Amino acid sequence: MTESRAPHPFDAAIALHPLGECRFAGATSPVYANMAGPYGGITAATLLNAVMIDPRRRGDPVAQTVNFCGAIADGPFEIAARIERGGKYTQHWSLALTQDGQTRSTASIVCGVRGAVFTHAEAGMPEAPPPDRVAPIPAPAALRWLDAYDLRYVGGPPEFAASPFEKLRDSRSVLWAADRPARPLDFPGLASIADCFLPRIVKARGLMVPLGTVSLTTYFHATAPEIARLGSGPVLGVAQAKRMHANFFDQHMELWSRDGQLLATGAQVAWYRE
Amino acid sequence: MTESRAPHPFDAAIALHPLGECRFAGATSPVYANMAGPYGGITAATLLNAVMIDPRRRGDPVAQTVNFCGAIADGPFEIAARIERGGKYTQHWSLALTQDGQTRSTASIVCGVRGAVFTHAEAGMPEAPPPDRVAPIPAPAALRWLDAYDLRYVGGPPEFAASPFEKLRDSRSVLWAADRPARPLDFPGLASIADCFLPRIVKARGLMVPLGTVSLTTYFHATAPEIARLGSGPVLGVAQAKRMHANFFDQHMELWSRDGQLLATGAQVAWYRE
Repeated sequence: MTESRAPHPFDAAIALHPLGECRFAGATSPVYANMAGPYGGITAATLLNAVMIDPRRRGDPVAQTVNFCGAIADGPFEIAARIERGGKYTQHWSLALTQDGQTRSTASIVCGVRGAVFTHAEAGMPEAPPPDRVAPIPAPAALRWLDAYDLRYVGGPPEFAASPFEKLRDSRSVLWAADRPARPLDFPGLASIADCFLPRIVKARGLMVPLGTVSLTTYFHATAPEIARLGSGPVLGVAQAKRMHANFFDQHMELWSRDGQLLATGAQVAWYRE
Repeated sequence: MTESRAPHPFDAAIALHPLGECRFAGATSPVYANMAGPYGGITAATLLNAVMIDPRRRGDPVAQTVNFCGAIADGPFEIAARIERGGKYTQHWSLALTQDGQTRSTASIVCGVRGAVFTHAEAGMPEAPPPDRVAPIPAPAALRWLDAYDLRYVGGPPEFAASPFEKLRDSRSVLWAADRPARPLDFPGLASIADCFLPRIVKARGLMVPLGTVSLTTYFHATAPEIARLGSGPVLGVAQAKRMHANFFDQHMELWSRDGQLLATGAQVAWYRE
C-alpha cells in the first residue's frame, strides 16, 4: 500500500485542471490570501504553472511579466494560455486569467533553451548571516500568505509607526525566504518568492496606504538543474524602490542562492493612493 | 501659405494609420534600422504610440513590457491594440505587432491616472559633467539607429577589442542621450531611449556575439507635464547587467533628467549564443 499524502499547500494553490483548448481551471487558496484577493506571487506562480505543465513547452522560463488588471475574487478562475511564437531558441506565451469572463490578470512568459556557454556574474550577493542565525518574523494576522513563508530579515525589516516616520527610511530590505512548510524550489516557487517583499512604500513611510501591484516582471537566471540543487532553500532576497511619485512606485529585487548564485532579478510597479 | 515641414524621422517611424477595429498599419524606417530589422526601442515606441493616439486612453503610460517574438522584416506591419481592462486608476492594454499574419512582437502597457500625492526619490543620480562637455560617439556604420541618437558617454563607453578582453570589464555605462536631430521628449521618445544602451555583454567582453533582446520592460515615473518641461533633453542614462548565464543576460537601466529627476527605470533580458 502506498501512503497517500496531501500535496503541499503551494502545489494545491497553483494546481490547474485542463479544460481543453489551452484552457485551465484553478481556484484561489485561503493559504495565500492577501489583504483582498490572493497574494500576487501565487497568481504569478499559477500563471507560470500553466506553461510548466503544457507538453508544448520548450526550455526553461526566462522572463515573466504579470499584469494585475483587476481584483481576483476568492473562488474559481480560468486561465487561457497561447503560444504566440516559438523559435529555435525562445518560445513566447501569452496568458489571461479570467473570472466571470472578465480579465483579472494577463501575463507574458518567455521560455528559452539554455546551454553551457559563456557565463559571468557581475552583481555581488549582499553579506548576510546564515539563515539559522536570524529569527523569522511573526506573521501579521491580516496577511495570511505571510504564514506560508519563512521570512528572516537580515536588514531593513518593515516597521509600522503609530504615526508616519518623522524622516523617511531607506526602502531596502534583505531577507532569507523559504516556503513554510519547506518545499523543493522550482520555477513557480521562485516566481512566487519574487513577490514576497512587502511594498517598499510601506517600508519607507512606516505606515500602510491603499496600494496594489500593477505589473510584475521576473527574469530567471538559474536553469532547472541549478534550481533542483537548491533543495527547499532558503534564498536571499533583496528589494529596494527607486522612486515613488504621482500614485506609482517601483521596486527592484534580486534572489540569491545560499552559495552566491543570482537566481532571479526583477521589478514591479505598484499603485498607491495617498 | 503655411510652410510644410517634413515630420521628424522619429515621428515618421512611429506613425500609425488606423485600419479600424483597433488595428493600425505601420512600416519600419531605415533611419532606425538595427543589425537585422528595426532597433528594439523604435518598436517599443511604435507599440506605445498605438495607445497614445487612441481616444480611449486614460492617463499616462506607467509600465510597458515588449516581447520580441520574432524578427521584424523591413517593410509594413500591423498592430492590434486591445483594452484588457479599465478601472478607476489604471487601464491595461495588450498589443500585438504582426507581419504576414505572424506575431513578431507583443506588448502590455499599463496607463494610470496620476496626481499630486506623496512623492519620494530614493535613488540618486550619477554624477556627470554637463552634456556639452562630453563628446558624442561616432556612429558605427553597421547600426543605422545610432545615427538617430546623440550619445555622449560619461563613463563606460563600449570598446571593441581585436580579441576578447583578457579580463572582463564592468558592464556599466553612463551616457547623455538625445534624439538627433533634436525632438521634444514625450512617452514614445523615452520608451525608445530606454533601449539605447548597447548590449551589456558586448560592453563586458569587448566583442560582438550573436544576440537579441527577448523582453523589455520600462516603468515611467515622470508625468506628461514633467516630460513636456524637459524639451528635447538630453537625458542621462545608466545601464548595467547583473548576470549573463546559459544563453541569457539581463540589463537594468535608469533615465534621469538634467535636473536630477528619475524619469524612467527598466530592465531587459536578451539572448546570446556563445
